[in-house]
Amino acid sequence: MKIEAVDVFYLSMPEVLDIGDGSQDALLVRVVAGDQVGWGECEAAPLPSIASLVCPMSHSACKPVQDSVLGANCDSPDDIRKIGDAVRANSLDLLQADHTLSGIDMALWDLLGKKFGEPVWKLLGWRKAFAKIPYFSVLFGDTPDETRAKALAARTKGFRIAKFGWGRYGHGSVRADEDQVAAAREGLGEDGILLVDAGTVWNTDVGAARKRLASLKRARATWLEEPFVSGALDEYRALSLESGTAGMAGGEGSHNFHMAKHMIDHAGLKYVQIDAGRIGGISVAKQVADYANAKGVTYVNHTFTSHLALAASLQPYAGLKNHVICEYPAEPKALALAITRAHLLPDGSGQVHVPDAPGLGMEVDPGGLRSYLVDTEIRVKGRTIYRTPALT
Amino acid sequence: MKIEAVDVFYLSMPEVLDIGDGSQDALLVRVVAGDQVGWGECEAAPLPSIASLVCPMSHSACKPVQDSVLGANCDSPDDIRKIGDAVRANSLDLLQADHTLSGIDMALWDLLGKKFGEPVWKLLGWRKAFAKIPYFSVLFGDTPDETRAKALAARTKGFRIAKFGWGRYGHGSVRADEDQVAAAREGLGEDGILLVDAGTVWNTDVGAARKRLASLKRARATWLEEPFVSGALDEYRALSLESGTAGMAGGEGSHNFHMAKHMIDHAGLKYVQIDAGRIGGISVAKQVADYANAKGVTYVNHTFTSHLALAASLQPYAGLKNHVICEYPAEPKALALAITRAHLLPDGSGQVHVPDAPGLGMEVDPGGLRSYLVDTEIRVKGRTIYRTPALT
Repeated sequence: MKIEAVDVFYLSMPEVLDIGDGSQDALLVRVVAGDQVGWGECEAAPLPSIASLVCPMSHSACKPVQDSVLGANCDSPDDIRKIGDAVRANSLDLLQADHTLSGIDMALWDLLGKKFGEPVWKLLGWRKAFAKIPYFSVLFGDTPDETRAKALAARTKGFRIAKFGWGRYGHGSVRADEDQVAAAREGLGEDGILLVDAGTVWNTDVGAARKRLASLKRARATWLEEPFVSGALDEYRALSLESGTAGMAGGEGSHNFHMAKHMIDHAGLKYVQIDAGRIGGISVAKQVADYANAKGVTYVNHTFTSHLALAASLQPYAGLKNHVICEYPAEPKALALAITRAHLLPDGSGQVHVPDAPGLGMEVDPGGLRSYLVDTEIRVKGRTIYRTPALT
Repeated sequence: MKIEAVDVFYLSMPEVLDIGDGSQDALLVRVVAGDQVGWGECEAAPLPSIASLVCPMSHSACKPVQDSVLGANCDSPDDIRKIGDAVRANSLDLLQADHTLSGIDMALWDLLGKKFGEPVWKLLGWRKAFAKIPYFSVLFGDTPDETRAKALAARTKGFRIAKFGWGRYGHGSVRADEDQVAAAREGLGEDGILLVDAGTVWNTDVGAARKRLASLKRARATWLEEPFVSGALDEYRALSLESGTAGMAGGEGSHNFHMAKHMIDHAGLKYVQIDAGRIGGISVAKQVADYANAKGVTYVNHTFTSHLALAASLQPYAGLKNHVICEYPAEPKALALAITRAHLLPDGSGQVHVPDAPGLGMEVDPGGLRSYLVDTEIRVKGRTIYRTPALT
């Protein structure tokens, strides 16, 4: 099958709030080859990703992403990997390209799975897909009381693991952060598993992060996520030596295999978190999952958007029995829920199952999305090089 | 001074060829504060960088770059660094942001230097600017004869150092590559200094790169640049152990300090090459220059575009006496030359001097650029969020 079309759709909530909630907009990708259609999703910043798909060439190693995709063959997993390699070579100097490729790669796996009538995880070489234990992923409340209520809600909804992040955490006093973490533990109960996400707030300041370790240990946090920016390898490692049972988690900022490898090799991580919508798609995420497994680091998906992205993010490590936690967007905006007709709901024992259905196993609902469509047009030299396509 | 305007101008040659020549288009940046104007340039892919400047917010850590720049104070070097920190935090999930920031950061240093009547290198803390020895940087010829002629031309023009890269190098046989490198050495003469740029052609294949080492050693190449993609730390290090006098050079793909640091710390580099138009501007490049110097790795600019970019790329290591080589775009397209009224020409002894004049020391020529201006418009939800501004 030759790839005939790569269409991207900018979707957004009517109002985007200035909060750390990544489910407020989306760039949906539709790929057509033969009589198959595949769907994927790029993480964040729809407009720059659209531009990197369609922009004029700057030079031989800075081509628009679509130049390496349109007309390419897609008949096997190896074909998809070759398309990724082509994008990375032909768009070497186009920084945004990895994010754009990510949604396309997802869509290609979806398409190929549908063609073969197999779930993507089988095409990736996994013989079995193990259920994952979802963690209820939310922002910290504005107050400890709000955070406690969110933690209680997690338990009420059947989640034993919850992650709290962003908001004011790290921006105020050490005491304020302690109160937030303690409130989360209270709401979650003694047997809940508590994860904390600092959202890179301390940049590279090991001292500032260190001051929070005592309260994290007291609240028995299982991990501290992104105390520092991705790539601050020495700072992560230094903190990991003092953080005791609160293991370091990070890696979501990686936009290629090497960056994730550096975090696994040099940052003292216990958990590597990969966003398949950023790292170059399912293909690269699978490469990281294999590497993490070989190095004794636990792979975890990073997903804060739709259930299409969630289904995609589970495929790369579906077959890793001991990598059991998965991020589960717990308070997504209506747009994120509208992207798929059905949702990956936890079963009676609180586990999430990777779909055992062709492709990503999720049905996209174009009709329900039209009200979120952001009409977009890019004109260069008087010629329209992008206009929002019809969403059908 | 409050930053009142950040305008970007997409410039291009009438025809962009499918060759590794990065001087075929440009994104020029103009910043206005108080009664000062500063100019900068972002490397490659103008349209995605425009989009990242003006796109709607996705969430609190994925804002358009201009949100962290417009209205900010710019009265001191520290103010410029704070603006960079703000962009990195507020546009954390917007991949293209680092490239966009790069041109803005250059323009802010230019503006501040003009305000204080000081060259940027003085504001960076250097007491003296040491002259650099430019290397004649060109693409390999299509044939060894063409390459030999280019090497001869380098000597005729007074350059003792020349770098050949891209083209067919690494794409054909080991023998073909050997012929190219030998021809370059012949043209350059025995006392010339030969540099070879593989342009990431072997991706991560150490074996393929290893096969070229014998011919590089025979031709006495001083460095082998980018045998692998940026970030392939283990592969670089493995090859460095066998490459003898041909030192490893790389790092141009780094788009933040950490990525450059990883290359310095773990890749066995002898030369770290930084593009101020990608890494986040002069501010971050200076940070890398200091780190490289402390670690005994030689800092070299990466510049293949205009003399505005060249002047900017020299500032960060102007004061490092022993870091003496500089990349010098030897066959730039007419557009790249048109950006500045004057050019940084080698003196009688073949050295290039960092301008001892306010700001970047280069005068941009808006009038001469209008014919290269690429009329661009981006419309979102029926509203024009970007239209090529008047270039005056």
